[in-house]
Amino acid sequence: MPKQKQLKLGAIIHGVGGNMSSWKHPDAIVDASVNFKYYKQQAQKAEAGKFDLLFIADGLFINDKSIPHFLNRFEPITILSALAAVTSQIGLVGTLSTSYSEPFTVSRQFSSLDHISDGRAGWNVVTSPLEGSALNYNKKLEDHPDHPKRYRIASEYLQVAKGLWDSWEDDAFVRDKQTGVFFDPEKLHQLDHKGEFFSVQGPLNIGRSKQGRPVIFQAGSSEDGKNLAAKEADAIFTGHPTVEDARRFYDDVKGRAAGYGRNPDEIVVMPGIGPIIGVTEEEAERKYQEVANLVTTQEALAYLGRFFEHHDFTQYDLDAPFPELGDLGKNSFQSSTDRIKQNAMEQGLTLRQVALQSTTPRPLFIGTPTQIADRIQEWFESGAADGFIVGSGVPNGLNDFVDLVIPILQERGIYRTEYEADTLRGNLGLPFPTNRYAKEKVTH
Amino acid sequence: MPKQKQLKLGAIIHGVGGNMSSWKHPDAIVDASVNFKYYKQQAQKAEAGKFDLLFIADGLFINDKSIPHFLNRFEPITILSALAAVTSQIGLVGTLSTSYSEPFTVSRQFSSLDHISDGRAGWNVVTSPLEGSALNYNKKLEDHPDHPKRYRIASEYLQVAKGLWDSWEDDAFVRDKQTGVFFDPEKLHQLDHKGEFFSVQGPLNIGRSKQGRPVIFQAGSSEDGKNLAAKEADAIFTGHPTVEDARRFYDDVKGRAAGYGRNPDEIVVMPGIGPIIGVTEEEAERKYQEVANLVTTQEALAYLGRFFEHHDFTQYDLDAPFPELGDLGKNSFQSSTDRIKQNAMEQGLTLRQVALQSTTPRPLFIGTPTQIADRIQEWFESGAADGFIVGSGVPNGLNDFVDLVIPILQERGIYRTEYEADTLRGNLGLPFPTNRYAKEKVTH
Repeated sequence: MPKQKQLKLGAIIHGVGGNMSSWKHPDAIVDASVNFKYYKQQAQKAEAGKFDLLFIADGLFINDKSIPHFLNRFEPITILSALAAVTSQIGLVGTLSTSYSEPFTVSRQFSSLDHISDGRAGWNVVTSPLEGSALNYNKKLEDHPDHPKRYRIASEYLQVAKGLWDSWEDDAFVRDKQTGVFFDPEKLHQLDHKGEFFSVQGPLNIGRSKQGRPVIFQAGSSEDGKNLAAKEADAIFTGHPTVEDARRFYDDVKGRAAGYGRNPDEIVVMPGIGPIIGVTEEEAERKYQEVANLVTTQEALAYLGRFFEHHDFTQYDLDAPFPELGDLGKNSFQSSTDRIKQNAMEQGLTLRQVALQSTTPRPLFIGTPTQIADRIQEWFESGAADGFIVGSGVPNGLNDFVDLVIPILQERGIYRTEYEADTLRGNLGLPFPTNRYAKEKVTH
Repeated sequence: MPKQKQLKLGAIIHGVGGNMSSWKHPDAIVDASVNFKYYKQQAQKAEAGKFDLLFIADGLFINDKSIPHFLNRFEPITILSALAAVTSQIGLVGTLSTSYSEPFTVSRQFSSLDHISDGRAGWNVVTSPLEGSALNYNKKLEDHPDHPKRYRIASEYLQVAKGLWDSWEDDAFVRDKQTGVFFDPEKLHQLDHKGEFFSVQGPLNIGRSKQGRPVIFQAGSSEDGKNLAAKEADAIFTGHPTVEDARRFYDDVKGRAAGYGRNPDEIVVMPGIGPIIGVTEEEAERKYQEVANLVTTQEALAYLGRFFEHHDFTQYDLDAPFPELGDLGKNSFQSSTDRIKQNAMEQGLTLRQVALQSTTPRPLFIGTPTQIADRIQEWFESGAADGFIVGSGVPNGLNDFVDLVIPILQERGIYRTEYEADTLRGNLGLPFPTNRYAKEKVTH
């Protein structure tokens, strides 16, 4: 009997939480976003739950309307490196933007994380939706590259990064004290990349890691985002309101990957979920209401505004239909703002309803541990997901998930009880990426 | 009786070692430069020895002639973050270049390290001496900024960084669940820097740390380097062949600091030393000869070449006088190459002698533990140093220093037996840097 396909899980650690108000919860740790003890506890809990990976999100621009977590939080490369030292098996994935960074530096930092963690690093490639980011990087607002250009940059950037990661073949470092040979010069390669956006000579000053190179995540769900993922990514972090939407997206991305000549199994699709778990349905519902009640209308409008280039929604009548915004949002969070506008129109929602729903939407994954496990299994087995990135809808959400839901998934045989591999790539079921130069030699 | 002035110590961790051949030593760990267990052991040993700080050096360009440690090593931000999680009191200082990076990213990464380590981060500001770095960062060789320009960039960069680190006043985050106030908007400040090289709006998306902001090290000993240090740095990492040279440098830098209106005690001068310790003088001498004998002439020429813009020294007669090189080296490692040329001329050295001496110079700090302690005390008490950055001249050098030399320094009352403070800044005896906006309020 072939072994049942196994679910993959990531845990997103999000400090004081993903919305304006979550920090006000009685059980919230108010400095969680810059509290290393908190991150360490969450990471170790996720590892105890045999999660494939931790996920740290990021952004490069704040103003006084940003959500509390964004104002004062750890930077991904640093916090992941610190967590590498206090974990031993879980993967470590962080967001970093290709629009405001240098391929040599970023390839190197992720590779160094990959060595420190002995093959557990992953990079979630994003393109910086917020145009204000330009102002922190020597540019004017209007110089923020538009959506298609950002993705062209990202695509070339990834080619450079993958090239730099092949600078040294896997067995390049001989280190023979007797002969005095530290490395084999034939296994050192200079990239000499010259493209539309980047010119990088190499070689990189760090070698290949146990998993070859860091695992590439991609998190945009626009057309450009899906194409980049299908072409270059090992995994995709997405989000969907219904299982049907998720299934459509899944088929779409896997089809695109096949279109690029890839094996569709070699791109892992992981929607984000924020489960709220109660011992009873009523407890789960009460937990959700507690969280939703923390949000003031003003906070909800500010949260909504960020998706639309920090648009000021206080200028509209709260109880009139959601305003017509034209193309606003097209150049920032394209897929999210398209969905918000479409929902508002289809359901005839007011601004107040849209704002509150966007800030604390009632999660689809709410209920008892068994109900949560059922829904996960349904998505997984019906071709909507290869796994999930699990966020905390409420304080202690990850702890509850590990203690109450994981054992059910394990019992059903769809989730590991021990790590299968000793790298992130191995646990995700992805093949080892052969060094491009080693491959050439085999062919000749 | 006033308490005796206390010596400050840093430990530079340098993987397989600082020269071409150190990895060939029978006791060398050949993958030390990418071996996290090795870095962790060294860091914890230095902490057991009550060192003020760990120091991680860096560079942005390699080729097939670079020394083995440079070819394949951890990147400083990542390794320091990882070490933050497995140490609790020692400072964590790393090199990062202002010529090929962005102030927003770098300020943020060091601040994040400062939060993760709870006030133990330090940044050694360098300007990238190797012009080849340009080729890894979308530039041509001739676009590598010249020495004076690199220092103008560094100076403005540091102003931006310090500005960003003041984005939030120390008590800006109120986090009052009852009132729903997460931060005090009056304590959030937008930098709006617009200068010759940088334009950065801010605010930074991370607050002040327990030590206010990371400690600034500077490591260049040229005129430009000394001025930058005197104006902006908290500490300076330098190197001198004799105590007289060191004393001159010490007075020079302290005088320049006073010239900028600073208290000279607020800049800590730390020469680098690479002690070789033996139970007897003979053992120490034998250890040195072992290391020196590992170096081939070819390796020595390659090592020397790196200081002179990777100049090929194999073209000259090895036993003729050191060749005339004109201005070569002026634009890279200015102070080092000036010294090499001057020594060669004054002492009438051949190329072979210069190369071997540069690669494995006989250290001034060599001998029994008592002899090493004597020399340290002599430099310290005669105004040549506030402390030292201790490198390992031989494998296990740091272990020997902690086990054999530290107890003598402690017994003499010039070195701590317990950490005095809970931040790097505090241990170095540096004042807490008041937030610029808080200061304004006091003045008004």
